[in-house]
Parts: sequence; C-alpha cells; structure tokens
Amino acid sequence: MKIAAIVSKPAKPELAAIVPEALRWLAGHNYRVYVDQQTVAYAAHDLVVARAELAQYKPEFVLVLGGDGTLLSAARAIGAAQIPLLAVNLGSLGFLTEVRLDELYTTLDAADEGRCPVESRSVLDCRLLRGGLEVAHYNALNDAVIKSTVARLIGFELCINGEHVVEYQADGVIVATPTGSTAYSLAAGGPVLVPSVEAILLTPICPHSLTHRPLVVGDDALISVRLDSGADGVLSVDGQVGMPVMQGDQIVCRKADYRVNLLRMHRPFFDVLRSKLKWGQR
Amino acid sequence: MKIAAIVSKPAKPELAAIVPEALRWLAGHNYRVYVDQQTVAYAAHDLVVARAELAQYKPEFVLVLGGDGTLLSAARAIGAAQIPLLAVNLGSLGFLTEVRLDELYTTLDAADEGRCPVESRSVLDCRLLRGGLEVAHYNALNDAVIKSTVARLIGFELCINGEHVVEYQADGVIVATPTGSTAYSLAAGGPVLVPSVEAILLTPICPHSLTHRPLVVGDDALISVRLDSGADGVLSVDGQVGMPVMQGDQIVCRKADYRVNLLRMHRPFFDVLRSKLKWGQR
Amino acid sequence: MKIAAIVSKPAKPELAAIVPEALRWLAGHNYRVYVDQQTVAYAAHDLVVARAELAQYKPEFVLVLGGDGTLLSAARAIGAAQIPLLAVNLGSLGFLTEVRLDELYTTLDAADEGRCPVESRSVLDCRLLRGGLEVAHYNALNDAVIKSTVARLIGFELCINGEHVVEYQADGVIVATPTGSTAYSLAAGGPVLVPSVEAILLTPICPHSLTHRPLVVGDDALISVRLDSGADGVLSVDGQVGMPVMQGDQIVCRKADYRVNLLRMHRPFFDVLRSKLKWGQR
Amino acid sequence: MKIAAIVSKPAKPELAAIVPEALRWLAGHNYRVYVDQQTVAYAAHDLVVARAELAQYKPEFVLVLGGDGTLLSAARAIGAAQIPLLAVNLGSLGFLTEVRLDELYTTLDAADEGRCPVESRSVLDCRLLRGGLEVAHYNALNDAVIKSTVARLIGFELCINGEHVVEYQADGVIVATPTGSTAYSLAAGGPVLVPSVEAILLTPICPHSLTHRPLVVGDDALISVRLDSGADGVLSVDGQVGMPVMQGDQIVCRKADYRVNLLRMHRPFFDVLRSKLKWGQR
Repeated sequence: MKIAAIVSKPAKPELAAIVPEALRWLAGHNYRVYVDQQTVAYAAHDLVVARAELAQYKPEFVLVLGGDGTLLSAARAIGAAQIPLLAVNLGSLGFLTEVRLDELYTTLDAADEGRCPVESRSVLDCRLLRGGLEVAHYNALNDAVIKSTVARLIGFELCINGEHVVEYQADGVIVATPTGSTAYSLAAGGPVLVPSVEAILLTPICPHSLTHRPLVVGDDALISVRLDSGADGVLSVDGQVGMPVMQGDQIVCRKADYRVNLLRMHRPFFDVLRSKLKWGQR
Repeated sequence: MKIAAIVSKPAKPELAAIVPEALRWLAGHNYRVYVDQQTVAYAAHDLVVARAELAQYKPEFVLVLGGDGTLLSAARAIGAAQIPLLAVNLGSLGFLTEVRLDELYTTLDAADEGRCPVESRSVLDCRLLRGGLEVAHYNALNDAVIKSTVARLIGFELCINGEHVVEYQADGVIVATPTGSTAYSLAAGGPVLVPSVEAILLTPICPHSLTHRPLVVGDDALISVRLDSGADGVLSVDGQVGMPVMQGDQIVCRKADYRVNLLRMHRPFFDVLRSKLKWGQR
Repeated sequence: MKIAAIVSKPAKPELAAIVPEALRWLAGHNYRVYVDQQTVAYAAHDLVVARAELAQYKPEFVLVLGGDGTLLSAARAIGAAQIPLLAVNLGSLGFLTEVRLDELYTTLDAADEGRCPVESRSVLDCRLLRGGLEVAHYNALNDAVIKSTVARLIGFELCINGEHVVEYQADGVIVATPTGSTAYSLAAGGPVLVPSVEAILLTPICPHSLTHRPLVVGDDALISVRLDSGADGVLSVDGQVGMPVMQGDQIVCRKADYRVNLLRMHRPFFDVLRSKLKWGQR
Repeated sequence: MKIAAIVSKPAKPELAAIVPEALRWLAGHNYRVYVDQQTVAYAAHDLVVARAELAQYKPEFVLVLGGDGTLLSAARAIGAAQIPLLAVNLGSLGFLTEVRLDELYTTLDAADEGRCPVESRSVLDCRLLRGGLEVAHYNALNDAVIKSTVARLIGFELCINGEHVVEYQADGVIVATPTGSTAYSLAAGGPVLVPSVEAILLTPICPHSLTHRPLVVGDDALISVRLDSGADGVLSVDGQVGMPVMQGDQIVCRKADYRVNLLRMHRPFFDVLRSKLKWGQR
C-alpha cells in the first residue's frame, strides 16, 4: 500500500467539500493517508498526527491545501525530510502554490503515476546567537528578516564569510532565498531571482544611506548580521513573527543542507511571474 | 529688556561649557533668559520653565542646543507661537540645525541685530480619530508615519479631499512636509522637496503592489488614512513613538495654520543637501 | 454663430466615420468649424487652416481626436491662446485624453452648454541658449528632456534660481510639469505629482552617483541645465525629437505665463491614475 | 626567458615616466616584453604588436596601464586566451583596476614569483542575429546594452532558454555579468552581484510598466532579446558604441566558454565596493 499525507489551512469552509473528496481519491488509488490536526477538522479520519511528525510515516507526497502561507508552514515542518509537497492554492495563484483547485486531480494522477515534475528549492538555515550561544534555529523557504521594532532604525553589521561588508543604519534587512525574492524582498525594492539561481539575496529595508543596494551573493556564503545599536529588533522567518533580537545578538544564515521538493504542473516560472506581477501590462 | 530662551538636548557633556557661555552672552546683550529643565542641568539659572511654557514669556528667539531631534521637539513645543528658533548643531550638520557651534556667536549677533534671515517651514497638523472622535492631536515638522507593528503588513485606504485614492497593502505610509522629505521618506524611496514647495508628500513603505510611487499633492489637501485590515499599527510623529492605531482608526493630516520660523545662516538649501546626501560624489 | 475647431491624429481609419459625424453635430448645434490639414483627410470640409493658425479664429473650444500625443501637439500649437481643448481618446484611456469615444457627444453637449469642467495645466517654457543666445524656444505640457546621444553618459550642471545645485553624470535629466510626472519621469523613477501642485519636477535618468533622487521645486523656479562634458546630447520636448545640444549649451526652463485648458469629464485624477498605473492591484 | 606584455591607455602624460620604468623592471627580471601600439608611444621599444595579437606570444601576464576602460578593452582583445591581466589604475580606484600605481612593483614582484592571487571573472558571449544570420559577435566583461536611439522607447521581447519571458516597452535593457553589476546596471537601478555568483543580470532601463524589476538568472541561461517595434536601437558592449539594431534583430547572450583572469592584490571585493559606492556613509 502507498502512503500519502494531507495538511490544510484552518478555517477555509471550502475545504469541507474538498478534503473528503481528496481522501476518497487517495483511498481509491490505494493510498494509506495520514492527516494533520487542521485537516481532520474538515473530515472524519482515523490517521491523525501532528504536522511535524507526518514525515515519519514516509509518505510519497504531502498534499498541501491552502495558500503560500500553508506551504511555507508545511515546508518548515516536513521539508527537511525532502518528501515532495503538492501544493494547491484555494484562492489566487500563489508564487509557490501554482496548482489550481481545478487541476487537483490531474495533478494527483500525474503524481501517482510519477509523471509530475519535481522542482527543488533551496532553503535558508538561520540561527540566532546570543553571547555566542545558539538560542534559536529556523529554516526558511522564503526569508529571514531582521527588523527594528516599530519606528526606530537599527544599526547592524553585515559580514560575509567572516569578512566585514558594511554597517547599515536601516529599518532592517532581508536575507532571502531565490524563492523569497518575490516575497517581502520585492516590496523592499529587491530584484527577482529565478528559483534555480545558486544565490542568496540581501535586501536592506529603508536604509538611511542612499548608496545601499540589494546584494546578491553565492549560496555558499555564510552571512552574519550583528545588531549593533539603536532599538531592539525582531527576527521573522517566512513572515512568522519570531524571536526578539537584542543588541549584540548575531543572526547567522547559510544554505540549508537539504532542499524542499515541490510537485508542479508544467507551468513555467515566468508565467507565474507575469501573472502575479502583472509584468508587461502598461 | 529683551527676552530670549534656551532649550537643550539632555546628556551632552559639551553643553556644560556652552550653556554658561551662552547665558553670559545673552545677559551681556541685555536679555532676560528663560531656560527649560534640560538646560538648567548644565548651568545654574533662576528662570526655569517647562519647555511647553516658554512661549508664554514671548522671547524674541529660542536658542536650541542639540541636533535635529532637539529642534523637532522644540518646534512641537514652541513652534505654534511662531517664535523664531535658532538651532545650533552640536555634532554633524543637520538638515534643520545648519548653524555650527563655531558660528553660534556670529549668528547670535545677527539675530540680536535683526540681520538673521528667517526661513519659515510648513507644519503638518495630524489627528487620530477613533469611532469618529479625535483621540490624539500632533503637529509635525517632518512627518507622520503610520506603520504596522513588526513583521506584518497592514491594509489602509488613502483618501484625499474626501476622494478615494487607493488601498495599500504595505508596511506603512509616510505623510511628510517638504522639510520631512529628507528625513524618513528619503530612506523609503521618496523624492527631495525643496522646503518652500507648497506640497505634502505621501511615501508608501514597502508597498506590496509594485505600481505604487510616492505621491506629491498640494498643501491644501486634506489627507486621510484609514487602517483597514491586517495587524494593528502605530502612529509616529517626527520619529517619536506615538499612538497605537487600531483597525478602523483614521489619521487625518492637513497643513497646520502656522509655520515654524527658523533663524538661519546664509547657507543655501542645496549646500546642505549636497553635504548631507553626498550629492555629486561618484 | 459659434466657432469650434477640430484637430486629428493622422492615419486612424476609424476617424473616417467619426470626423463627418462630429462635423454634422457641430453644424447642427450652430458652430462654424475650422479644421486642420490632418482632419480634412477624413472628411471634405471648406474651412481648413494650419494647426498653428486655428487659434486666430477664436474657437470656443478645439476638439482633439487622437491620443495623448495628439493632445500634446495641439497644446503646443494652440495652448498659448488658452482656448479649451476637448480631447477624446481613440484607443485606451490616456492620462490627458480621458474622454472616451462613447462619451464624445455627451461631452460636446456639456461643452456647448457650458457645463463642462475646465482643468488648467501648467506649461513649461524651455529655451536653448548657445553662446548666451537663444537658439530655440519650446513649450512643454509634459516635459523637456536633455539626454545623451546613445550609449555615453553626459555631465551637466544644474542651477536653480542662479544657485549651483549639483553636477550630474547621468544619461540625462527630465524637467517635468506635474502633468508630465506620469509620463517619462515615472519610467525614470520619479514620483507622481497631482496636476494642481505648483511645482516642477527634476528627475535624473540613470545617474552614476547612487545618491541622486528626483527633486521637486516650486514652480517659480528658474531651472538651468548646462551641458558640461562628455558626449553631445539632445533636447526633446513632450517626446518629440528636438535639438542637438552641444557642450556649453544651456537649457533654461521656467513655468510659462499661460496654462493649457482642458475640457474634462467629471473623472477624478486618481481614477485615471488607478486605471493607468494599475494601482492597488497586487 | 619569460614573456610579458604591456597595453596602455593613450594620451596619459604620466605614462611617459611609468612605461620606461616598467620596461626596465621587466627586463631586469628576465622578461621579453611585447607592447601594443599605445604603449610604444610612451617609450621606444622594439617588440610592438597589435593588441589583439599579443596573446600569440604567450605572455605569462599582461600589464594593463590605464583604468577600467583600458582593462575592458584588453579583456576583449586578450581575455579569451586566459592570459592573466595585471591592471593598474592611474587615477581613482576602479572596480576592476584595483591595483594602485604605488603598488605596481610589489604586485609585479608577487606576479613574477607566482604569489599573486588570480581572480577569474565570467564573460558574456553576445551575438547579433539579423534574418537568422549572425552579423556581429562580441565578448563583454561588463555588459551588453540594447538601447533605443535618442528619445524614443523601444519594444522588445525577452526569451530565456527559448521560453517567452516578457515584452518590454523601455529605453532599453542591460544584460550584465556579475562584474558588470556595478557598472551601468547600477545606475539603472540594478542590484550588486558579488563577482563569483554564477548568474547573469537583466536590468531594464526606464521601463514604461511600473512592475518590472531587475532579473537575476543562472549563468547557464540562453538570453534572447528581439527588437519588436518602435525606434531602431543600438547594441553597446562594455560601454563601446556598437552596432545599430533594427526591427526584428535578435541579440543572443550566454556565458562565454572562457573566463578573464585578473591578477589582484589581497583587496576584498567589499572593500572596493565600500570605497567606490561610499557604502555606510550617511
């Protein structure tokens, strides 16, 4: 018997119809299905486990029902096991959840038959050091953001591979994967990186010096941001509110040693980009 | 007898020498001098009053010893009385405090003899409405900033003169006077407005739509920003942490009915700009 | 008998139907109509005069059939006489030609009955000086652009009111009216100015120093750009290829002493802006 | 006997002292030296060959006396042979010519003794196709720029790996190596790419749609730009005025199959960046 899993976004009424149907489809195709606690809220099901433990059951793929936010959460919980994620958007096309609801079963067919292309995305390993000790550890599919608390700028020093790069006075800085280049970094004025580029993107947020620009470094770089002065800050990972960051704290980011695997349609990246960014519309 | 006043930045050791000297100069030139509580910390003096009450004594000018921050504070406390402010920077040249310490006495001479040019700057009148009632009222020489609390974007609607302009999803928005165009707005990507332009500048902070641009409207505009959705926010005025802003709150800004008068050297605005922004350096 | 005039964009097949109909409408409403040479190509008509001479016949308004380009041309030819222009867009909504074809006759009705709002727009007076002598004189509704010839940057000095502002190394500089802020300046990274702001906008094109920003000055400013070094340049006015500019040449811009009057629908500026810039679309 | 070569910038009076001295140093260290025609103008020397033929003599390195422009020219002429270039700046620090004149002989010592670090930079192979036939072929160390002739925007289609990406209406587009990211692309608003990133940067120049952003793709990408409409254009390579580009022409860029080798001091990239961009200065 094959194994699959489902994770869902909470509080989406339309899932009350979709989840039972997806469970039937998977049962009918000979899958034993594990679901997380968000999913069982939409349909009675026996095999319920915490999201973070789904990977132990070695599903061939995880069906993610929600939007980019649900996928980011699933990627943090399951991604390290490199189990493919089949993410379906319930609303508008997402940068990550590019499979539409009306494509769900053709995509499941393709996944079941091994015809579904897999696209792997690099992940950022991000650690918060205080007094030299690691006090928090996160993985980010999009970005790690170090930002001042409201209304005060912060000073921080950027080092790459141990080399001093520059001191910023700014509202913050975004350390992004290529995947994250179309998320918050874009709003802060960053460039678009194609997902396959082996690079990490550093985008300052409202820097007080006019000469700063977004910076693209190789993905073998070890990036360190040390909070120097000014107000305290906050470290957010993939848009989740995270840890308070205090003066002297250091955030160290590098490419994680695994990639997240996404099951995709044959939809080119630039199609998604044009659609989401309204490129080429005057 | 003529009247003058002094306000000072706290905790600046160099003022322990400057304040007594300035008091002597003013006494020697026949001024009765009122000082605020920050100033008396640097030199024994009898006539001490709260900063906000200095204007009642109708000084001919107020000597402001500090930086741009001290001037902004003095302008909020005293500016409405339109008493000229003679602001001396203790550190690096400020956008507003362009008189250097070594120019203090030549500038005081000029002020005393009525030879000192006065430059008036427009002020923003900013009110926070909740349930239609005014719950806070501020005057800003630089800007009013409505911003999300950390790490969440906010949605807000911008109206001008009662006309719907646009809904933003962004980290926030800056409503700035021309004077404030070289402050936080510049870091957020705004243009430079010459102080005399009769305009108000609206600069979005990290807008999620790529099509937004800073917007320059006439200074007779009535600007309203209503927090629509998403996280709560905060209203900051001239960089001071201000009021929490909640969903449904409205911030209404218009030009105040007074201007702040600055006593200046004959230093052209563009000289300050070149020096501060390092314009023309490659 | 009332007087009207028509100017048209050449080579638009749809005008072969529209022009005769408009002529009939105007005749039926008791107008003597003068047309330019472009218009008579679409319909036989006796009263044909050069576009630049239409103003002599003192029409109550000029019907402009085309797009923003035709209006810009008509404004240069006729605008100084301050005769109202009723501009109809044949294709997509223009920033300036906001009356749609299907609104033509309701707008003509309104114009005929004096119910049509008039919006006046400031104009830029732009002179090219060589060896101190004026060698060309243009009026611009949108902008005057001084630009290098292909692939070489130019150096130029900007003065405002005779005061040295800065030396640029750049591809060029745009001097724009508020109307022109949504034209080429926007592509070069400039802000949006509401048409009624009493200001002139200076936007550098690809400046080599990272510290330059667009600059907004009062519309009483006398702006001078002197080509200093590097390649020769070209002066374009409202997008029309204009004069070669040589080293030492000076371009002097100021607000013209007339405004162009546009007959408008009751369509707010921000509606046009939202529609054209796709504001608020994510 | 060892072999070296010298290429020089023309019309630099200071080279009249430097070139003879460098020739003596090289002779004294047992080098047979070939020089180009620009170099022999500064010092009598027998072994003069055209710059493009220097590589045939298999020098161990080429001393480049000039600035970034001279190095770019030398790289086009000699780079494909992968002979190391030792570039000395005569004026201000260059992004590429980071060896100062006062470091010339210590760097020559290091080069002679094989202690000088070599940094290799990727190169762009750029071909102009007309009617499907290759009509020009260039190599670029910085960038290939397709730009409209003065004052008219051009329309062009961008394809990557044969996939349609987007149609631009713009003044042009810059295809840059990481090395070129700090050249013209930076003035057009592009990000900074560390030289070692395996990427190609596409930066639009004054795009008429507000949604365009610089785009970073992997350096295995095949980039094609086809001129669609509007005015004719010009293709410039490394800032040299190049070929006229006509409607329907296609410019195809990919990473060249060689890299340019630069002999360097131990000066970190970020030191150069901070110095040139005035990073961290407020």
